[in-house]
Amino acid sequence: MSFEFTLEAECGHARAGILETPHGPILTPVFAPVGTQATVKAVEPRELREMGATLILANTYHLHLRPGDTLIRDLGGLHGFMAWNGPILTDSGGFQVFSLAEMNRIGSDGVTFRDYLDGSLHHFTPETSVRIQHNLGSDIMMAFDECPIPTDRDVVEAALDRTHRWLVRCVEEHTRHGHPSRQALFGIVQGGIFMDLREASAHFVRGMDLPGYAIGGLAVGESKADMYSTLEQTTPLLPADKPRYLMGVGSPEDLVHGVARGVDLFDCVLPTRVARNGAALTRQGRINMRNQQYAADPSPLEPGCTCYTCTHFSRAYIRHLVKASEILAHQLLSLHNLHLLLTLMREMRAAILDGTFTDYAAAFLASYQTVGAHKGSNAIPVAGI
Amino acid sequence: MSFEFTLEAECGHARAGILETPHGPILTPVFAPVGTQATVKAVEPRELREMGATLILANTYHLHLRPGDTLIRDLGGLHGFMAWNGPILTDSGGFQVFSLAEMNRIGSDGVTFRDYLDGSLHHFTPETSVRIQHNLGSDIMMAFDECPIPTDRDVVEAALDRTHRWLVRCVEEHTRHGHPSRQALFGIVQGGIFMDLREASAHFVRGMDLPGYAIGGLAVGESKADMYSTLEQTTPLLPADKPRYLMGVGSPEDLVHGVARGVDLFDCVLPTRVARNGAALTRQGRINMRNQQYAADPSPLEPGCTCYTCTHFSRAYIRHLVKASEILAHQLLSLHNLHLLLTLMREMRAAILDGTFTDYAAAFLASYQTVGAHKGSNAIPVAGI
Repeated sequence: MSFEFTLEAECGHARAGILETPHGPILTPVFAPVGTQATVKAVEPRELREMGATLILANTYHLHLRPGDTLIRDLGGLHGFMAWNGPILTDSGGFQVFSLAEMNRIGSDGVTFRDYLDGSLHHFTPETSVRIQHNLGSDIMMAFDECPIPTDRDVVEAALDRTHRWLVRCVEEHTRHGHPSRQALFGIVQGGIFMDLREASAHFVRGMDLPGYAIGGLAVGESKADMYSTLEQTTPLLPADKPRYLMGVGSPEDLVHGVARGVDLFDCVLPTRVARNGAALTRQGRINMRNQQYAADPSPLEPGCTCYTCTHFSRAYIRHLVKASEILAHQLLSLHNLHLLLTLMREMRAAILDGTFTDYAAAFLASYQTVGAHKGSNAIPVAGI
Repeated sequence: MSFEFTLEAECGHARAGILETPHGPILTPVFAPVGTQATVKAVEPRELREMGATLILANTYHLHLRPGDTLIRDLGGLHGFMAWNGPILTDSGGFQVFSLAEMNRIGSDGVTFRDYLDGSLHHFTPETSVRIQHNLGSDIMMAFDECPIPTDRDVVEAALDRTHRWLVRCVEEHTRHGHPSRQALFGIVQGGIFMDLREASAHFVRGMDLPGYAIGGLAVGESKADMYSTLEQTTPLLPADKPRYLMGVGSPEDLVHGVARGVDLFDCVLPTRVARNGAALTRQGRINMRNQQYAADPSPLEPGCTCYTCTHFSRAYIRHLVKASEILAHQLLSLHNLHLLLTLMREMRAAILDGTFTDYAAAFLASYQTVGAHKGSNAIPVAGI
């Protein structure tokens, strides 16, 4: 059955499961590379498949503005348009409407904003967001929500109320005009860092009986301590038999912390964005490939890594490409960074199934943090896997 | 034996052959994609192999300045550095020294110029160029030459004299300090559009008894008529049993015209450069993917093309990537454009072996020129192969 979620194993709060979708199963925990404009930047779909990506994310807001969701619908939906036959998740556009739009005016009906491309006026409502996602044809759709700075209680409370009313309208629109067996609509729990609001939100959103639940409003500026604390108090409020999605996370350490707190799905631009800034993710931390120390370094980005980049190219070569502003630098660093996060997720899943997740997470974080302490130093050691 | 050239068939002046190199045979006629800075822009080495590239070109001038040829030598030469195990050709740096350098001063000894990266002073001599190419470890090295605007007789004559004296020094340096069985040094025939100078140059350069001969100083600003005319009078001046290389060419039509005039090797940045400008090469001509007419076009760049791009993506998708300034646009257009030129070379080789080259070339040029007549129009038709 579409969108059935099977919990295979738990280890502490960490979970391993399988989420069925019309475009194949997703083994969880899973990290979704982000393809904002219907392309994971600098990576070909066949390369995503090769590195074991299953779920990717695309952005409703950007694709609605360019090239337009009706065009994408007419060209086979996102799957056909971007030649990705695996599962796709689309966000609601809410986050971008609030954070990117030049001007926005929030009403109870929705949000009016100016197009960042040509300045024209647009109006997004819960119904608009759902209809656009119908056109995009994603496997997993997100409810239209407001995601405020999570630390101002009055703002968070007002946004939460709107988010709940908008959720009801999203569900109605999807039930009436969508195909819930082909596209799953996930609800989003908001409430900032305030646990009574998170509880109220989880209670409300659970009441809609949806195929999956997201935790929104984290990783948007609050402290790491606030994020981890809110997260570990929120996941237990969600049904155990449905997938849990932490939006916009993350870094290697946040993925481990998230899985440890019972999250099943993640997405983040970080691996491809830092690649375009010339940085490689490693199990010991992030390394800046512009640094002189790599100029004659014959070793791969991460010794032992099995990705195309690490099995063929040296740090010295990649540093040369970065310094020479070559496109191949973005390609090779993006391949490696995504491969690392996807490998990390597979390792965590295997450890959960083995019952060794706690040890795995502790070992990973100890090694990762050791280097975190040297940040800014040129002497970041990168040991073998 | 290294660098043995076997002529397999001739059809008119067109030739099919095999050039042996330490990194494998090159079936000719051949087009070499250009990897200026030790990377064919936006294309991975495994993709070059997949599309059937055999020979690639890298630039001595750029690599000497950054990252430095001794560094590349220490990291396994160009083959190891850029993970390309096939044959590599390096130019002499002469063309860039004269055309790119901020300031250059030509003496009988060599050229003094300022580094375009940091303004520092460099001095290139024939010996310098050969030594750098020894460090790079290319299979085919080029003699250091001066390549002036080909239509000013006085300038061409003075440059030719220098080029000949420099060739003697290149050969001496390579014989004394190089490994002619591992690296072949090709001489370059200059002389602009003046046939008596071309004859004198061919006579001089042939006298050095080299493993291959290039025709330089064309495709640098003269008219197409001048280029084709000079070319067809120059190739007969070169030995039939050695490969002939036309530097810096070309476009699809120029490749056909070059092969028809007896050229075996070509290189050009055109396919990857026009890709980065958002244009696709097709058998009917160049098409600009920014054009509105492709906005909803579900067909591939070139119907019937077997490249990764054409078998997976629509013109509408590629137009979207170009408009959104996505790196994947450069990747997919570069893959297609290179694949087209490599396919064209394979087809020409097969036609020469079949004895049908004249018909093939006439049919290709008729179809290509038909569209050339519509240049600037939005209605460039792209028919099946």
